[in-house]
Amino acid sequence: MLNHSDTLDRAFQALADPSRRAMVERLARGPASVSELAAPLAMTMAAVLQHLRVLEASGLVTTAKQGRVRTCAVDVEAFGAVQSWIDARRREWESRLDRLTRHLIDHPEMPSRKDPK
Amino acid sequence: MLNHSDTLDRAFQALADPSRRAMVERLARGPASVSELAAPLAMTMAAVLQHLRVLEASGLVTTAKQGRVRTCAVDVEAFGAVQSWIDARRREWESRLDRLTRHLIDHPEMPSRKDPK
Repeated sequence: MLNHSDTLDRAFQALADPSRRAMVERLARGPASVSELAAPLAMTMAAVLQHLRVLEASGLVTTAKQGRVRTCAVDVEAFGAVQSWIDARRREWESRLDRLTRHLIDHPEMPSRKDPK
Repeated sequence: MLNHSDTLDRAFQALADPSRRAMVERLARGPASVSELAAPLAMTMAAVLQHLRVLEASGLVTTAKQGRVRTCAVDVEAFGAVQSWIDARRREWESRLDRLTRHLIDHPEMPSRKDPK
């Protein structure tokens, strides 16, 4: 539970930066080399590598080196943990709204219907 | 665009803490007073209020005071921005996997089928 919580801490923290989200947006469309990842970003390679380290530490992105090229990819499972947490919250309030709606259908008495006139 | 990015920065940052996520988990089940929100958390009221301020600043939680009671609720729209970003990434890689699958169906030649023997 603590580990899962820690995973979510690091994943949400990693996503709280526009450059890192831009990198995840690029990688969601397919794996890319570090150079491809850096190309559209207006920052130094050192800054790109620093953001990449945060993404790797969060588990959201994995990298693998083949020869001189390091290829980066989204870790679908780690991303799934974030998505599951978000989806669970949505299901909860949707279920609450369903219960409220059913209650209003079962108890349609509105104050105006109790009008004494 | 900058504003939207800033909204996501603050929302993801707010969710990068287990106590704040616990508060959002509670509020997804329905609005609660600050005392109700604080009850299950092992922390001082000052710490609860500090986390609540971060959640309010992120837009994920709204609070309204009636008399002496401050009621907190999840802002479904702000939460929706986070959810949309996550869902868009999932759609992108699912669409990429679909393309890969179609490619493999259309081009079923496997190396073993080219076996010269």
